[in-house]
Order: sequence, then C-alpha cells, then structure tokens
Amino acid sequence: MGRKATFLLFVMLGFGIGLSAQEVEPKDPEATEVYEPVPPKVVPGSNGAPPSDAIVLFDGSSLDAWISSADSTAAKWHLNQDGSMTVKDKTGNIETKQAFGSIQLHIEWRSPAEVQMSGQNRANSGVFLQGLYEVQVLDNNDNNTYVNGQVGSIYKQSVPLAMASVPSGEWNTYDVIYHAPKFSRGGNLKKPATITVIHNGVLIQDHFEVEGPSEYIGWPTYQPHGKRPLILQDHRDNSRVSYRNIWVRELD
Amino acid sequence: MGRKATFLLFVMLGFGIGLSAQEVEPKDPEATEVYEPVPPKVVPGSNGAPPSDAIVLFDGSSLDAWISSADSTAAKWHLNQDGSMTVKDKTGNIETKQAFGSIQLHIEWRSPAEVQMSGQNRANSGVFLQGLYEVQVLDNNDNNTYVNGQVGSIYKQSVPLAMASVPSGEWNTYDVIYHAPKFSRGGNLKKPATITVIHNGVLIQDHFEVEGPSEYIGWPTYQPHGKRPLILQDHRDNSRVSYRNIWVRELD
Amino acid sequence: MGRKATFLLFVMLGFGIGLSAQEVEPKDPEATEVYEPVPPKVVPGSNGAPPSDAIVLFDGSSLDAWISSADSTAAKWHLNQDGSMTVKDKTGNIETKQAFGSIQLHIEWRSPAEVQMSGQNRANSGVFLQGLYEVQVLDNNDNNTYVNGQVGSIYKQSVPLAMASVPSGEWNTYDVIYHAPKFSRGGNLKKPATITVIHNGVLIQDHFEVEGPSEYIGWPTYQPHGKRPLILQDHRDNSRVSYRNIWVRELD
Amino acid sequence: MGRKATFLLFVMLGFGIGLSAQEVEPKDPEATEVYEPVPPKVVPGSNGAPPSDAIVLFDGSSLDAWISSADSTAAKWHLNQDGSMTVKDKTGNIETKQAFGSIQLHIEWRSPAEVQMSGQNRANSGVFLQGLYEVQVLDNNDNNTYVNGQVGSIYKQSVPLAMASVPSGEWNTYDVIYHAPKFSRGGNLKKPATITVIHNGVLIQDHFEVEGPSEYIGWPTYQPHGKRPLILQDHRDNSRVSYRNIWVRELD
Repeated sequence: MGRKATFLLFVMLGFGIGLSAQEVEPKDPEATEVYEPVPPKVVPGSNGAPPSDAIVLFDGSSLDAWISSADSTAAKWHLNQDGSMTVKDKTGNIETKQAFGSIQLHIEWRSPAEVQMSGQNRANSGVFLQGLYEVQVLDNNDNNTYVNGQVGSIYKQSVPLAMASVPSGEWNTYDVIYHAPKFSRGGNLKKPATITVIHNGVLIQDHFEVEGPSEYIGWPTYQPHGKRPLILQDHRDNSRVSYRNIWVRELD
Repeated sequence: MGRKATFLLFVMLGFGIGLSAQEVEPKDPEATEVYEPVPPKVVPGSNGAPPSDAIVLFDGSSLDAWISSADSTAAKWHLNQDGSMTVKDKTGNIETKQAFGSIQLHIEWRSPAEVQMSGQNRANSGVFLQGLYEVQVLDNNDNNTYVNGQVGSIYKQSVPLAMASVPSGEWNTYDVIYHAPKFSRGGNLKKPATITVIHNGVLIQDHFEVEGPSEYIGWPTYQPHGKRPLILQDHRDNSRVSYRNIWVRELD
Repeated sequence: MGRKATFLLFVMLGFGIGLSAQEVEPKDPEATEVYEPVPPKVVPGSNGAPPSDAIVLFDGSSLDAWISSADSTAAKWHLNQDGSMTVKDKTGNIETKQAFGSIQLHIEWRSPAEVQMSGQNRANSGVFLQGLYEVQVLDNNDNNTYVNGQVGSIYKQSVPLAMASVPSGEWNTYDVIYHAPKFSRGGNLKKPATITVIHNGVLIQDHFEVEGPSEYIGWPTYQPHGKRPLILQDHRDNSRVSYRNIWVRELD
Repeated sequence: MGRKATFLLFVMLGFGIGLSAQEVEPKDPEATEVYEPVPPKVVPGSNGAPPSDAIVLFDGSSLDAWISSADSTAAKWHLNQDGSMTVKDKTGNIETKQAFGSIQLHIEWRSPAEVQMSGQNRANSGVFLQGLYEVQVLDNNDNNTYVNGQVGSIYKQSVPLAMASVPSGEWNTYDVIYHAPKFSRGGNLKKPATITVIHNGVLIQDHFEVEGPSEYIGWPTYQPHGKRPLILQDHRDNSRVSYRNIWVRELD
C-alpha cells in the first residue's frame, strides 16, 4: 500500500512517466487546440422538421422517393391530403429508391384512432433499417403483446426501455441513430449494427447491438451487405398505419 | 472455393451445425417471443417537454434543485421572468443537488442576441456531465474558434459532426445520451464514458468515447468515481448564457 | 491541473471513492485469498514428452488415432521404425478420429535432409487446427517463398515473427495454443479463433486473431462449427514430411 | 427463412456483395501472396537454451545483468558452481539492469529437496514481470495454500489451470509470453497486461488479462509506466529458491 501512495505522489509531482520521448504533456492550453477540419454548418429544423443537409424521403407532396419492394414499380400506398401517407393493405412493403448505410432518421407515424383487432394484428407496421433490421411500429395502447415485439422493440431482439406511445390517432416520432454493421472482406461480421431510438422524446433503444436481420421464426444470421434501402412494412392485416415527415442524414 | 460453396449449401439445407445439443433453432414463432419484464409506461412530453418519469431540474419556477459549486450555498444565478435562468457572472458554477450516473438529458440554452467579444470569450458556458465531462456551450455564430472547443464539442476531445446552432438570441436544445464510465474495483478504467448529443435535432456527437475529464491544459486522466452532480459553467467572462427546461431520465 | 492533484490526494488519503457500499477495499490479506476450485495436478513430461493429462495422438506405435480425410478409412501414411510417420504422397490428408475445440498442441515435424524442388513445392505440409486453420509446415532453409506462406505462417493470413527452423533433416517442434472461434446461436462470428505458436522455443505467432479458414485463393470466410478433427496435410508433391510425438490437451 | 436461403445462394453464385468497388475478391492465388517484410532468421536453442536473438540475463557465469532492487548496488544472491543462483535470504529482491516492455521469457527455478516450513513460507519466490506483475514461484508439492497464491498463479489474481511442478529439488521451467499494459497519453488504462505461462510444458496461464500490480492486501490499481526491469523476489523466509538459464526476447 505504501507503494501505491508513492506511485501516486510520483505522478502528482510531475515526474514524467516516460511513455515515450515524443509524448510530453503540454503545459500551455494552445497545444491542445485543433483548428481543422471545420465541421459543416447545418441549419436546423424545428420540432422535427428536416435540417438543411437532410435527404427528405417524404414531405407529403409525393411518394416519388419510394418504390414497391415486391416489383420495384411505383409505391402503391395512399397519399393523403394532410401531408401523410398510409399503408395500402396487401400492396406490400415500400422502400426508398436510394440505398443507405449509417443514418440519422426522423420518421413520424400514427395508428388509427378507431382501433381494430388486437395484439400483433392491431395497426402493425415497421421501419426496416437497411431493409433488414426492424424497429417495430404497433399500436400497443391497451393492447399487450410479447414485449420483444411491442412498439419500439427491435423485433424479437430488444425489448424497449419504455412504452412511450401517444394515444391511438395521434402522431408519434421516432428519432433513430443507426450504424450499419461492418463485415470483413471475406464476409464475417466485424461489428454488429447498432440502433438508438428516441420515441416521442424518450430514449427506448440505447445503442443496441443488433444480433442480425429481424426474423419471425428462428435466430438472426447476418449476411454481408453494403448500402440498402429503408423499408416500411405492409403487415397485410389492414393496419392503416400512416407516416409523415421522413428524412435522413447520412453518417459516415 | 468448392469447399466454401459446399459449406453454405450445407447450412442452407438445414443440417444442424450442432453448436450444442441445448441450442436447436426453433421452428415456431412463439419460441422467440418474450413476455417479461414489461417495460414501464411513460407519458411523453411534446417539443422537449419532460416525459412523466423525468427528474425536472429546472422548469423556470426556482433554482431549488441547484447549489453553488464553490461553497454549496444556494445557486446565485439570475432567475428570469420568462422561465429561464442566466449565468450571473463571477458567481461560479452551479450544480445539481442530486448526483447522477448514466442519464438522458434535455437542456435548452440561449446566447444573447447582442453579441460581445469573440472566440471563447463570446457567450461561453458548458454542461459538465457528472461535473467532469463538458459539452461546450458557446456562441459560434460568425465567431470561429478552435473546432474542438466550438459549440457542441466535447471540450478539447471531440469536434462536433456539425455546427447546428440557431441564431444568437434564439433557444438551442441539447438532447444528450450519457453513459457514465466504469471502473474496476481497484479504480482502473474498464469502460470510458460515452456521449451522444443531438443539437437542435441534428446529431453532432455520436456515441463518443470520452478520454477523461475535460482539461483546459494537458491530457485527460480518469479518476474513479460514482454518481456525481451535473454542473453548469460560469465561464467568468460575462457570458450571459441562459438555460431553461432542464430534465433528466436516469439510465441503467 | 490543481483539480487533478487534488483528486489524487483524495485517493491517497484513502477517502473512499464509493463505487458502491458492497465493495469496500479489504484491509487484511486473507480477504483476497481464494481456496477453490483446486487446480488439477498434472505430471509434466520432459523435452516435449506428453504430460499426464494429454491425449496422445501419435507416439510412434500406430496410426490408430487417425483416418484418411477423403474416405474415413484407415490412415495410409508411412509408419516408420524410428517412432515417426511420413506423408505418403497422394494418399491425401489424414485427420484425428477425435474432434477438438480449443487445445494446447505439441507436434514435431521434419523435412528430408536431401532437398527436392523449391518454394512451396519443397517439403510442404500443414497442421490444420480444427481441420480449417493452417499452421504452415515447409522447408524454408535456403528456400524463399511468400512470407505469409512460409514455415510457421498462418497460411495467407499471418507472417511469422521469425524464421526459426532447424536444418533440413532435423526435428522441429511446434507448441501451439489454439482457441476455437465462437459463434452466435444464429451463426455469426462472435470471437475469432486465436493461434499462438512457439517454434523450437521461439515465439512466432502471438495470439493471432484468425480471419477465417485458410484459403489458397481469395478471402477467408468463417462458417459456424463445433468440435472438429485436427488435420495433417498431404500437399501432393512428394513432400516426404515426417511427424512424431503429437499430443493435445483440451482447453476450456 | 426463404429470404435466408436466397441470400446464401446469392453469395454462392458469386454475385458480388459490393462492399466497395476497390475490394473485389481475387480469383488467382498470387493475389494473396505477401513478400515482405521478411521475418528475421533466428537460430533456435534446444531444450530451453536461448535462441540466437535472446538477451541472456543469466547463464551461470555471473550476476552482472542484475542489481539489488533496494539500493541499486550489485546483486547479493549466491552464485553457485552448477550454473545457478540462489536467493540469499534478507538481501532483498534483485532486478535486471535492463528495462523491458513485452517479452518472451524463459526461466528455470528449483526449490530445495529438503523442505522447510509450509504454506507460503516454503520456498517462496516470484517472477515480477516489469517488476509489478507476479508469476508465483512456490514449492506446492504436498503443501497446499490458497489457490490464487499457489505455484504458477498470477498472485491473487489468477488461479493456474493446473499444478504442474516437478518434485522438490528438480528444475522447473516457466516459458512466459508477456504483453505490457497500454495506457492513454493521460495515463488511463487502454489495454491490460496479458500473461501466458507454460510450466514444464503445461499451459497454466492462458492469455490472462492482468487486473493490475500484484498486491498482498487489497485491490490492484494500474499506474501508467513505460519499460521496467524484471524482478526476482527474496520473500525473506529463507526460501532457498534457485534460478538458472534466464533469457528474454523482446516483443513489439
């Protein structure tokens, strides 16, 4: 113990620890200032509106940024008068024309005020990051289901930290920080995807390390991939989920 | 190469890989459903307002959650009529009475519309997570400084990904996800602190691994600690920075 | 800086850092003594001879622990009078009947004193850990080749730290510490295999993280697997490499 | 599941996964050959004798490579006729004049055939890597003690995987692969020290991550350091432990 104290005293008195001759701790504040590269200026939006550098995927004017996943034709979902779109049942998933890697994503969604059915069959949709990793969209208001499949879950992988939905019929926001998985040149997983989700201002997924693509049955298995489109799900049960104000910012 | 294809075919055809007898991939969807623990319900706020489970540190009514860091007496900053507080120059830092570990933090700040001085001397304050790790608050509008000390930097450690301030005189928001560092029982760093910052809706710090306490001179060195208060900085240069709507949610 | 010194002094004087109430640093030496589990006693061999708990794979008496990789029939290599075995050209690889995970391996090998051919065609064989990850066996005495394929390399993945062969015709030893790769239940790589090799007493591979199975062409790709046999290579070029004194100890 | 199979087929058929345009898997074996740097040639010793590039710390001829730790004067231990040296009781630890970082170490030791005392008081010494991290040397033949302090333990940190001593009075070997800890420029632990020990040919410490300097009382705490000498311990109990054939090879 005496040795421990001596050691600390040694450090305190400033006798160098000699990590290497090149690395001497500077004594002036200027030595630890960095002047470049200068970060880009971004004009922020307010209340979820897109910042100046965002790629706007849906602003209510058209579905032009989207195609039908099944056949790559024009997206068939409903374009509404109020600046939103709604899943058109049994027309299938829609996906962005553009492919993405790591992104910051803002998306708003609403389940119908007049509820139908229960469990996973009530207003079920999903945001599939890179088309593979699902953040669950579901009306869980007075509607329980398995917790790793409830609203805000990473489907069948991560229970959300909280259930933070607004009442059915009101607009929810998801603010997502997503990092794409990394693979070795031979295709082995080097770094899993991570997902952070803020649901209506409440942190519900906290840098979760994704186990692999979302699977309804069985275990997730990564396959190597590059950039891929964002997918919104048609769960084929007349979910009537609507979306609006969708934008992304690309992260390295 | 033939071997590789054979291997994959082997997997495709579903011959078990036999990781262990206990782990057989399930064939039915129910096997991967989880029913507990059930996440708590949280009523979200809107536009940055505190969720139902937040610890409100400042809502404009009083400075009662804060003390003066220098002498633990009542916080001496200005309490304004508009629901904000303003640094009272040379009264020193203020800190929360309550100590925190990992948190989600929402805080809003404003630099004065009528600017004074330049560089680090213009409207400089800071949010010190656990009183040690600073997210810089500074008026950088038409006011350059070293980029690892500009608004939104982790001071002298991490340049922000973007400069996303609103004009001087308007309110900025910081939404922060902070994880406290972890130390071994003997006090060695086991896991660095991490900081994510969303500035006015724009991701500017992305799970940054903090090198140690913010230092004006020299290199950061962690010392083991438990929970500690949040500190707001009086930079002692008549910065006149104001704060409002401060709340935290405790994580793990 | 003053803060730094104060902090250290704080620690030195023994004011607890309060990581938690449960963890108070003990003041007596007995508190950090552990009495179980008691490690097994192992009677060591000398000069590479197998310890008492080793699984002896070849002691010169027979090839009974081995089969032909091609057809699982009896191993066809030469069993010599001097307690060694020699690759019988074009009879194919041989492998252990027993499958292994992580192991300590001792193996001795010799290339012929009278050399033939050059480069990769001179006395080439290989030790394939779990039948997939090759430690190269090659006569590199006055015989250069690509360095990631020379003696002691992890074939096409890791150049050895040194070339430590004895002269052609003398016996080399490889002492190997091998850890099997770990995979998620879904088959993703969680932890790569690691290989340490001591060649004739000289460390030549130092906890190398294997990129995947050894490939002659292209990039390595892991496929999930459990225990697998050890393979010795017939390189099909009349390599005449001999082996003796092969034993393993299973690790965790 | 259908998706999974399709994915694999996709890979099998060789449609590129497009990680990036620069990285196309090569089709010819030459593309994955590497020709430099060429590893140095090292002439190995036999049966523990030093390789050609070793720094010999003790070969029986003198104690010239060592000093007394207490006062930096000449080492006071016994130099024996048989090429060994023996702890001279109460003369204190000895240490190498040369300081080391990461090393491969070979060292041989012997406890007296005629035993005295018991537990930690019977023939106790120790090899302190970088003078701080102890591999225990102790006569544990029919002499039990706490297992994290028995022969081959990393003292009070890691129980050995096996007890592999030869009988009292015979020579033991330790073959050690040691990696020095790494610290940030500010002195935080970035990577713990690791220790692998092969005791008489038996792996007893397997890349153990050291928690900090060996402590008799309390918990280990790293302090940043550069290269430091190797220390052999005088346990001050007439341990009569002898050493011979000590050499190291420096690792990156």
